[in-house]
Amino acid sequence: MKIEFTVKQISDLINGTIEGNENALLERFDKIEEGEKGGISFLANPKYSHFLYSTKATACIVKSDFVAEQEFTTTLIKVEDPYMAFAKLLEFYNSLKPVKTGISKMVVIGNTSTIGENCYVGDFVSIGENCKIGNNVQLYPHVVIGDNTQIGDHTVLFAGVKVYDSNIIGQHCTIHAGAVIGADGFGFAPQQNDAFQKVAQIGNVIIEDWVEIGANACIDRSTMGSTIIRKGVKLDNLIQVAHNVEIGNNTVIAALSGIAGSSKIGKNCMIGGQVGIAGHIKIADEVKIGAQTGVSNNIHKEGAILLGAPAMDASIFRKSAVLFRKLPELLKRIESLEKNQANT
Amino acid sequence: MKIEFTVKQISDLINGTIEGNENALLERFDKIEEGEKGGISFLANPKYSHFLYSTKATACIVKSDFVAEQEFTTTLIKVEDPYMAFAKLLEFYNSLKPVKTGISKMVVIGNTSTIGENCYVGDFVSIGENCKIGNNVQLYPHVVIGDNTQIGDHTVLFAGVKVYDSNIIGQHCTIHAGAVIGADGFGFAPQQNDAFQKVAQIGNVIIEDWVEIGANACIDRSTMGSTIIRKGVKLDNLIQVAHNVEIGNNTVIAALSGIAGSSKIGKNCMIGGQVGIAGHIKIADEVKIGAQTGVSNNIHKEGAILLGAPAMDASIFRKSAVLFRKLPELLKRIESLEKNQANT
Amino acid sequence: MKIEFTVKQISDLINGTIEGNENALLERFDKIEEGEKGGISFLANPKYSHFLYSTKATACIVKSDFVAEQEFTTTLIKVEDPYMAFAKLLEFYNSLKPVKTGISKMVVIGNTSTIGENCYVGDFVSIGENCKIGNNVQLYPHVVIGDNTQIGDHTVLFAGVKVYDSNIIGQHCTIHAGAVIGADGFGFAPQQNDAFQKVAQIGNVIIEDWVEIGANACIDRSTMGSTIIRKGVKLDNLIQVAHNVEIGNNTVIAALSGIAGSSKIGKNCMIGGQVGIAGHIKIADEVKIGAQTGVSNNIHKEGAILLGAPAMDASIFRKSAVLFRKLPELLKRIESLEKNQANT
Repeated sequence: MKIEFTVKQISDLINGTIEGNENALLERFDKIEEGEKGGISFLANPKYSHFLYSTKATACIVKSDFVAEQEFTTTLIKVEDPYMAFAKLLEFYNSLKPVKTGISKMVVIGNTSTIGENCYVGDFVSIGENCKIGNNVQLYPHVVIGDNTQIGDHTVLFAGVKVYDSNIIGQHCTIHAGAVIGADGFGFAPQQNDAFQKVAQIGNVIIEDWVEIGANACIDRSTMGSTIIRKGVKLDNLIQVAHNVEIGNNTVIAALSGIAGSSKIGKNCMIGGQVGIAGHIKIADEVKIGAQTGVSNNIHKEGAILLGAPAMDASIFRKSAVLFRKLPELLKRIESLEKNQANT
Repeated sequence: MKIEFTVKQISDLINGTIEGNENALLERFDKIEEGEKGGISFLANPKYSHFLYSTKATACIVKSDFVAEQEFTTTLIKVEDPYMAFAKLLEFYNSLKPVKTGISKMVVIGNTSTIGENCYVGDFVSIGENCKIGNNVQLYPHVVIGDNTQIGDHTVLFAGVKVYDSNIIGQHCTIHAGAVIGADGFGFAPQQNDAFQKVAQIGNVIIEDWVEIGANACIDRSTMGSTIIRKGVKLDNLIQVAHNVEIGNNTVIAALSGIAGSSKIGKNCMIGGQVGIAGHIKIADEVKIGAQTGVSNNIHKEGAILLGAPAMDASIFRKSAVLFRKLPELLKRIESLEKNQANT
Repeated sequence: MKIEFTVKQISDLINGTIEGNENALLERFDKIEEGEKGGISFLANPKYSHFLYSTKATACIVKSDFVAEQEFTTTLIKVEDPYMAFAKLLEFYNSLKPVKTGISKMVVIGNTSTIGENCYVGDFVSIGENCKIGNNVQLYPHVVIGDNTQIGDHTVLFAGVKVYDSNIIGQHCTIHAGAVIGADGFGFAPQQNDAFQKVAQIGNVIIEDWVEIGANACIDRSTMGSTIIRKGVKLDNLIQVAHNVEIGNNTVIAALSGIAGSSKIGKNCMIGGQVGIAGHIKIADEVKIGAQTGVSNNIHKEGAILLGAPAMDASIFRKSAVLFRKLPELLKRIESLEKNQANT
């Protein structure tokens, strides 16, 4: 897709102030360190400031209080928040792509289901009975929607998303390819012969508005009641959310993390990759959990910052981790103390 | 789905004894702490006993030796094992759902393959050549079955399960959406130019009866011979089982765990989430492995309980983990000892 | 599939020298410890030498300098590298399977897309507009290819692989079932109301030649520019590769590992299972990273061997891990030192 805008046109989109040639043409987004003629870059992290003086990008978005310390050739577009401005431009670029609409002839849609206006239903989509698909919904090829499921307006399900029956997905959600919504929770009752009896999982999944769910992630349905993903939650790829979990508003979780059954995560939490959260626990709001942390107890303290397995205050973990590497040295010091003590 | 039963009808299903109004109507399963009129709850964990006195659920299943210590309004149904009884009721409820049967018109089934009686074959299912699908099998939309594969009676494959060629799946199995059975094991022979030569994986996967496999889990085929999942094994979502692994009867593994090539897991093991098990090792029967543990050596001891990475006896891990947090304090004590010793 | 070859025919394929009956018939690959009449085994690891004297396999591939220390009944085929020779035989066996070709009638292919010669396009494959599929490509059932995507000659995509739009996949690649190529990177800009604004991901994924990607693995598209998987890389199942990552030639990564955004992995690295690599870091060539390691800083040293979370030199980790288990004992020794010191 070829775009071409003047610096002025771009600057106007983000309420910028131009220093340089407002008529120069922009046709591409460039990383600042790889900028070339026709490219627009941005500088948000002061650490990368030195690239500004050497970049060949035609224009660069900088913070409004930026003061140059050397010569440079790029045209500046000054804004309050360069990262947000750049994100807005990427979004603008994205919005120029033709929007997919229409219903493929190779689909199966249950007679009792309804599809809203301006929807896209791709090849080989299968929609069960008694579903309600909102307006402006995009169902990419191979999406499977079970019976009695609702999908809100403006939601996008990418290729091969599988939604089991009786789930509710809100508006403006994005669910990436291969994600599975509403599979049975992992519940089994031990029997006397060492075998396990499956516990039927008769609940469902509720995904509120503005949620994004990554590729091949899994959100299990609840045993009864609902597994709930609150408004604005962002889940990365390959995440496991077990039955009866609730994740609070705007919490963000990175890839390969898992949350065991019935745990409640607060709002505005930030959770790194490969984190494990045990079942039946509660995590307060605004908690930050570093990658690979294992949380096995309630976290009551709002805004706690955790690391380690089992999880502890991050500052304690960092100090202890430094000493972990020095354990052989500590042992020697103990041995030396013992030797000296024996000699006195 | 609307249900309505009397307390007596429900109690009879689970051989219960009623204390209260046997004619009250039940139409819903409720958590005890969220019980409302028309709901039936259960009380299995003594920790939750206090909810019994305040619940508004119409009935509550309790242990036969339960003695109330306060007033309450709910009707009691007394049974030997409340959790099992409740699981039985959930299962009963589930069994009331209409069973999907029939073969969609939008499927491709190889001419040389056979489908048993009373099967459901959903939209866009693709079945290769020379497959044998048993009776009462349910293949949800978008299931893909490779050539020469057998699937036993009463087995359910949910949407988008992909089975490669030449695998064998037993009876009464449940495989959740997006799981992949029989992809190539990860085998490569190093070459002299730093590149790797793929080692063909000509074996298969054998899944015995009563196995449940979670959404987006992967069970690789063996290099030769079979990767074997024994009777009654329960695997959660997003689990990796590498080539030539064998998992013993009734072993249960939680989400995001991985078992490397050729390892043998005993029977009746319980393995937590995000556990890693190295290749070419053996784990005895009845072993319990906590979440995020890394097992890199044989575990000979039946019933061992493991934690940590590398794995160790759980009780040792717990003690050492407490001291890990105190390493800065231990350092100070060593420094203090050194100082005192220098001064004497 | 039934095969039958003489020992001589097999030996000739791998340039072997026969000691024993060159006319014996082989019809099966057997593990040496499970060898039976008609089977061919191999002995690469000296640890398993004792099986040679008891195996009932008809023939066994051994190293050319092998000298027997006991009697045995199997026929020897001596070669330079038994594992490579065996891999070659497995590959030969595999090549006898009929190659799938032809285009199913149940597919949707965009009018502006082209398919090369001798391709296989399985049931329910969906190919968007403006794609270029090379010669001898195999697209198994349910593969989804987004618009503007290129796939090189001899590449195989197994069932249900989902490729988003505008990605480039090289020649001789193998991508296993359920893998997702080119989903949006996980990029969100924090807003003032605690919500997050999605950052459009307008880049793509480039996969070079001879790459293998495991089942249900995810390779995200870049924010801008490309996420790049270099020639000869082998990725196992359920791996997460975030946006703007680059993985160098011939690097091998085991299952359930994750690489966060913008990190660059060198060439010829070997990375174990469940490893986490933080974002925006660089890892040198030839680095080896053990299972479950967490790498959060640049690794400058070529050939470094790492373990632990946070990662450290493997030899340090091993020593410290031994002492971790002994922390209760170390504490006692410190207490004893303190007591003695107090008494003097």
